[in-house]
Amino acid sequence: MKGKLFLIPTPIGGDPLKQLPKETLSQISSITYFIAERARTARRFLQSAGYPLPISEAIIREIPKKQAYTHLVTDLAPLKDGISIGLLSEAGSPGIADPGSEIVRKAHEWGIQVIPLTGPSSLLLALMASGLNGQKFSFHGYLSPKKELIGKDLRRLENSSKNDRSCHFFIEAPYRNMQVFQAALDNLQATTLFSVQCELNTSDTFSKTLRIEEWRKQPSPDLHKRPCVFLLQS
Amino acid sequence: MKGKLFLIPTPIGGDPLKQLPKETLSQISSITYFIAERARTARRFLQSAGYPLPISEAIIREIPKKQAYTHLVTDLAPLKDGISIGLLSEAGSPGIADPGSEIVRKAHEWGIQVIPLTGPSSLLLALMASGLNGQKFSFHGYLSPKKELIGKDLRRLENSSKNDRSCHFFIEAPYRNMQVFQAALDNLQATTLFSVQCELNTSDTFSKTLRIEEWRKQPSPDLHKRPCVFLLQS
Repeated sequence: MKGKLFLIPTPIGGDPLKQLPKETLSQISSITYFIAERARTARRFLQSAGYPLPISEAIIREIPKKQAYTHLVTDLAPLKDGISIGLLSEAGSPGIADPGSEIVRKAHEWGIQVIPLTGPSSLLLALMASGLNGQKFSFHGYLSPKKELIGKDLRRLENSSKNDRSCHFFIEAPYRNMQVFQAALDNLQATTLFSVQCELNTSDTFSKTLRIEEWRKQPSPDLHKRPCVFLLQS
Repeated sequence: MKGKLFLIPTPIGGDPLKQLPKETLSQISSITYFIAERARTARRFLQSAGYPLPISEAIIREIPKKQAYTHLVTDLAPLKDGISIGLLSEAGSPGIADPGSEIVRKAHEWGIQVIPLTGPSSLLLALMASGLNGQKFSFHGYLSPKKELIGKDLRRLENSSKNDRSCHFFIEAPYRNMQVFQAALDNLQATTLFSVQCELNTSDTFSKTLRIEEWRKQPSPDLHKRPCVFLLQS
């Protein structure tokens, strides 16, 4: 009997006991072997999620954030011995705008059962809260790292939306949020819907969808260094 | 003081008390005015989610599933009088592959605070469980209703994935699942990754990602009339 691979979401900010469903919390409690981006954050998370064992008894393997994951086969080996593994995200849902997909793919290759657990995802919350097209949408990760190309990127997404009214969304390094916001005001058409979804699920939430012409009329929100999701629709 | 618009996810199958976080359940308890696709399902949901008032005291307005929503202004009027509204999905998260976005957009237009609550979404769970690219993905809703065009649609998504390794996903009317599955085997290239995510979050879950050449070697899974999400990546 092989182990199972559980995909464990973590809160975006706030208390796991309030932000995760009972079912997710109870599955976490049954796991003793975890894979996480950072062992320290993972330990802290498990403790605040009511993990029943002494935390020193949980095995936690770290995966590097941005490199190819080379220890895959060794770290996943326990699955073949019937031990279940919990894959933890740093914040939000594993595999969504975060590393971890490679691990899930390897599990499928080995015929391991993959079980995604319910929890917060800033992308999903942003899409819901935007009111934009949730029947047809594309997530693009980050826009161009070159400042002078951001406007071009935005116009490309806008054009693509024009054909099918799809929603296009992306994230940005938080210290560049104001640049992106300004580029949207400068480059998108007056009637295009533009949505800023910032720190959802916290007490500092900012959530607003307006046409570009309306954004232009009001003072810009302060988005500097706040985790944001940007969405647009023509 | 204006009311707030809460976006309330509902379980995909199973017990709301186990599948929704405490925070979501407690927000639901504080609301007395709801908008839902079907009042009957909404009432049943509220009761099983531990709604504290006699259910007859909750006001529930129905929105038509597939038509333009014409009573928008009337039904949302309580927001202006300081009454908060809960927008309920039939299953999963409101505004994601379901109507409701129009309501959220109107709220933004009126300057109403929109608060998305955490809960299950079959699309998000499918994307997580697939192990495909969660940093760049497009959801396409339904493929062509014409049987003979499904293969062409699939090849178009595959081509689009070839350029940027993005993940493309879609849903299908459950009685057409086997047609779509067969069309994928017939039309996609041998090395393309194809993922079938079926009835996630239930005891009948089927979750598998394989290359087309591997799918071709094994017996087809029985997907008939089971809610599925299909994903592919070149």
